[in-house]
Amino acid sequence: MRRVAVIGTGHSKFCFNSPKTSLEMLAEVALDAINEANITPRDVQAINVGNVLGPFEEGQGMIQSFFANDIGCFNVPASRFEGACASGSMAVRDAVLLVASGYYDIMLVGGTEKCTAMSTGLATRTFSMYGDSRYEFPSGFTFPAVFALLAHLYAKKYEIPLAALKEQMAAVSVQSHEYAMKNPNAQIHKLISKEDVLNSFMVSTPIQLQDACPFSDGAAALIIASEETARRLVKKPVFFAGVGQASSGKLSSQYKYLPQLHAREVACQQSYRMAGLTPKDMDLCELHDCFSIAAMIAAEGLGFFEPGQSGWAWEKGETRLGGKIPINISGGLKAKGHPIGATGVSQVYEVTLQLRGDMVEQGRQVEGAKYGIIDTLGGDGVLLSLIMTNQ
Amino acid sequence: MRRVAVIGTGHSKFCFNSPKTSLEMLAEVALDAINEANITPRDVQAINVGNVLGPFEEGQGMIQSFFANDIGCFNVPASRFEGACASGSMAVRDAVLLVASGYYDIMLVGGTEKCTAMSTGLATRTFSMYGDSRYEFPSGFTFPAVFALLAHLYAKKYEIPLAALKEQMAAVSVQSHEYAMKNPNAQIHKLISKEDVLNSFMVSTPIQLQDACPFSDGAAALIIASEETARRLVKKPVFFAGVGQASSGKLSSQYKYLPQLHAREVACQQSYRMAGLTPKDMDLCELHDCFSIAAMIAAEGLGFFEPGQSGWAWEKGETRLGGKIPINISGGLKAKGHPIGATGVSQVYEVTLQLRGDMVEQGRQVEGAKYGIIDTLGGDGVLLSLIMTNQ
Repeated sequence: MRRVAVIGTGHSKFCFNSPKTSLEMLAEVALDAINEANITPRDVQAINVGNVLGPFEEGQGMIQSFFANDIGCFNVPASRFEGACASGSMAVRDAVLLVASGYYDIMLVGGTEKCTAMSTGLATRTFSMYGDSRYEFPSGFTFPAVFALLAHLYAKKYEIPLAALKEQMAAVSVQSHEYAMKNPNAQIHKLISKEDVLNSFMVSTPIQLQDACPFSDGAAALIIASEETARRLVKKPVFFAGVGQASSGKLSSQYKYLPQLHAREVACQQSYRMAGLTPKDMDLCELHDCFSIAAMIAAEGLGFFEPGQSGWAWEKGETRLGGKIPINISGGLKAKGHPIGATGVSQVYEVTLQLRGDMVEQGRQVEGAKYGIIDTLGGDGVLLSLIMTNQ
Repeated sequence: MRRVAVIGTGHSKFCFNSPKTSLEMLAEVALDAINEANITPRDVQAINVGNVLGPFEEGQGMIQSFFANDIGCFNVPASRFEGACASGSMAVRDAVLLVASGYYDIMLVGGTEKCTAMSTGLATRTFSMYGDSRYEFPSGFTFPAVFALLAHLYAKKYEIPLAALKEQMAAVSVQSHEYAMKNPNAQIHKLISKEDVLNSFMVSTPIQLQDACPFSDGAAALIIASEETARRLVKKPVFFAGVGQASSGKLSSQYKYLPQLHAREVACQQSYRMAGLTPKDMDLCELHDCFSIAAMIAAEGLGFFEPGQSGWAWEKGETRLGGKIPINISGGLKAKGHPIGATGVSQVYEVTLQLRGDMVEQGRQVEGAKYGIIDTLGGDGVLLSLIMTNQ
């Protein structure tokens, strides 16, 4: 297997109610990525796209084929991946394998989504289709309810009073909003306090509005290439050191492991093993904080903190720049935004720029970072893990 | 790249209004494929699934993850592919590349779809989302209209009187219904005459009801493996000799090539080149006859007949058993049925059984077949081409 690198990136501003279509948003960032990689559309040999709600939000399926040809990548193989909120990371991982195997030298990977084109009053219902629709959704298991359940299980299992857990969860959101202030692509540029979180609208006890990420529109794109091609085209390629992917059954079938998600362990062990690295080697992390409790569970599943300990870590600043493991220095899904099919690609964009040292100007560079890990959760069913390095 | 083989197959009866969910249909045929391959679910290392309408028809996205774990393939990587009616073939091609590259030894590929769960009065509208939704659908370009346009262009370009073309198209449908009589999995077991076609309901002139495939429910599954694993597990592995995939822009951007689809040429040239074979080497073909005119155009694009000549070939019986190139001896989409995400996997199933010599009992064996080609069209945007061999 050859080494594979990111050599071009593009990222839209994440926002509410974009006037552009998913295809238009993706086309813009894809052309940015192509320019940055010093290639032309004709050099792209294949395309993977993560997109979830196209048919629902815009009546457009199979967006990847029209997208490919609209940007001048005529007749290349173009595939759409759907793994709920992990669709983008899934598209990235598959592309990494196809380039690593020597089948392609240069691929374009994009993610794009409009989550706010339909009434956002219906968005929670729409998102629920990416959990188990037959038994769990009719029982009330929308995603806020799923993570509310996990929060209760977490509090009980680790013997944390619910009031204390809510303060920990608030610390996660407060940090994310703070870093999003420095991210020009972030959807929300507004500082919030612990009190703002604790006084926000109750969604599904104990989860309040400010414990949850927003609905978002946006797109991100990457050009990935084999090492030889990468070194020929750009000065600072950032490599994939390990990739992992694992699936789960419906939430109720995972009771033995909850509130931890076993698929996360499986996926990140794959990527750590492939990279020959451990959690201690990681210099930064972008993880899936669709809810603040999800961030806490993820940070433990990835091996950064002992189970039940991550809330204190957030409160003590161990997840900040200069802390033990800087997490979601982008603002995370909470404040950067969460256009679901684009999210995994956006996470790779963030870690790539950090490992290039390109975040100095934005005032959120992780100094001397060599290794970064990306964690993306799709529904309650799929986990993606990607480790990147500039070494 | 290693050689890759099909070592297990499963196929549901295609039907109208299945009482089972997409997941249940897929689980059944996947377990059949696992049994036939002499493995257990724990031996499956990764899963690709083609599924298009799950969220629309059943409110279920990300079906692959729940499916994987429901059949006992716990925590394996499972990806969903969407390329409209070519989703299943797209899932197959990606799996072939991942096994060929040595990344996996054994993968499961499935396709499943319920096209008849919602009102079939709305199905044409739903399918239209897999064409260009922004400009072409609002102009009336549902798929019957797309193929009606192609039929008119075909008649004009090749100077075939429309009445003669309609008789040729009828010959395609008549043949498919005849072979479907011998296929126990076929949705429609009813002989039709040329007059039945010509007297059927007018859908979009010149396309009548009996020029069009039905809406269908169904599933199909394959176990694919590396050559070494295949030879250890089964007596008659059937190998992939070549794979190809190409995308197109919206129909109106393809005007230079119509009624031929340029992406088909690109995709099948990839697979012919990879296989080191030509159309003359093929012993049978399963191609994408969503409409009879689509079958005629496909047979020419694949290189079996000169442009404008395939209708006569069907009328003369050159596409039958014993003819120049037996096409759709399964009954094709027209009479076997077309559960869209399952269709490509079903085509591979058909060619696999033919190349094993397993169609004798059904009375539709292509004697001595060594090479077969699969052609799948997704919307008007993506073409998949797969060549298989028992050599």
